[in-house]
Amino acid sequence: MNQRLIQQLAFIHEIDKVKTIIRKTKNLSNGRHENDAEHSWHIAMMTMVLAEHANHPIDVLKVLKMQLIHDLVEIDAGDVIVYNKSAENEEAERLAAERIFGMLPDDQKEELLELWLEFEERKTPEARFAAALDRMEPVLQNIFRECETWNEHAISHSRVVGINTKIGEGSQTLWEYIKKELDRCLDEGCFTTMEKE
Amino acid sequence: MNQRLIQQLAFIHEIDKVKTIIRKTKNLSNGRHENDAEHSWHIAMMTMVLAEHANHPIDVLKVLKMQLIHDLVEIDAGDVIVYNKSAENEEAERLAAERIFGMLPDDQKEELLELWLEFEERKTPEARFAAALDRMEPVLQNIFRECETWNEHAISHSRVVGINTKIGEGSQTLWEYIKKELDRCLDEGCFTTMEKE
Repeated sequence: MNQRLIQQLAFIHEIDKVKTIIRKTKNLSNGRHENDAEHSWHIAMMTMVLAEHANHPIDVLKVLKMQLIHDLVEIDAGDVIVYNKSAENEEAERLAAERIFGMLPDDQKEELLELWLEFEERKTPEARFAAALDRMEPVLQNIFRECETWNEHAISHSRVVGINTKIGEGSQTLWEYIKKELDRCLDEGCFTTMEKE
Repeated sequence: MNQRLIQQLAFIHEIDKVKTIIRKTKNLSNGRHENDAEHSWHIAMMTMVLAEHANHPIDVLKVLKMQLIHDLVEIDAGDVIVYNKSAENEEAERLAAERIFGMLPDDQKEELLELWLEFEERKTPEARFAAALDRMEPVLQNIFRECETWNEHAISHSRVVGINTKIGEGSQTLWEYIKKELDRCLDEGCFTTMEKE
């Protein structure tokens, strides 16, 4: 068997582990904690349906690729809730990207590493839109589940708004919708964590 | 909020149920039964890495879209192992496609319904490659897990080979690899179900 295929199949085997990386948020339909594979699938589906709301025209294929691979680094670095990201965690993710994408033939390693870095840097329209949906999915889960995991992690309305304002960098339309929903949740008393003065 | 966005978000909410559709096969990394969202993510990743092995040049974006949506119909129709597909199940899937894609604005409903039908009909290079990986993923899981779910469902080596020969319609290279692995499994005594004379 050719060496390229051997490497590709080893990579395909390795990334199965993404299905075991458990996130803080819970699925809409059954309340079970979501894993990274389910999350990646869901945000890719969101791109297929919501691409027209991007602030700038986007290359949908590039966005899908970024979203499908963006959490592979968590196989080594683990899942950290967006409200607690640290420099240490960023370094662990960088090393993970080298190891995991490094299992592929060189040309594919380079392609996926570049896509992952582009996603992390949030500078292109594609990266901003991909990242906007990455943030929006857990927000939708919390909105539909009465702020459940935000309350479990003592995260207030203003912290949620502060962190997720960046959704607007990918799609102002989607952020306006989310912001209204967050304010509705606040008005209805769903947030149990008080704001710091 | 505009009517399109309301419909799109209702669809995004609905399809979360794919995460609750449990397949017969088991994940490589933890032996838990896989669900349709995890499976769809994994075969999309396989396309990103294995596209060069397609028999004919393929539009990767189209393949990814087909793979991401192909199991949505199981929200209503349930998961049926490929060895037990029936006309009844096909009709249930057709009705499910109408209902689920019908939640979207008309233009998006048409696009996804057409993609789903193209995938089901297996006539274009994209559909054949997408379907080849849809079959190949559970085969890899069984090969790596000593034919576990084939043995649980009393499926013999010749039935596995018979059903999965179609992988070759999408990629002869990948089918040659799989066929050798299946013969190796037979030689090593992993199949516990005997062939019928």
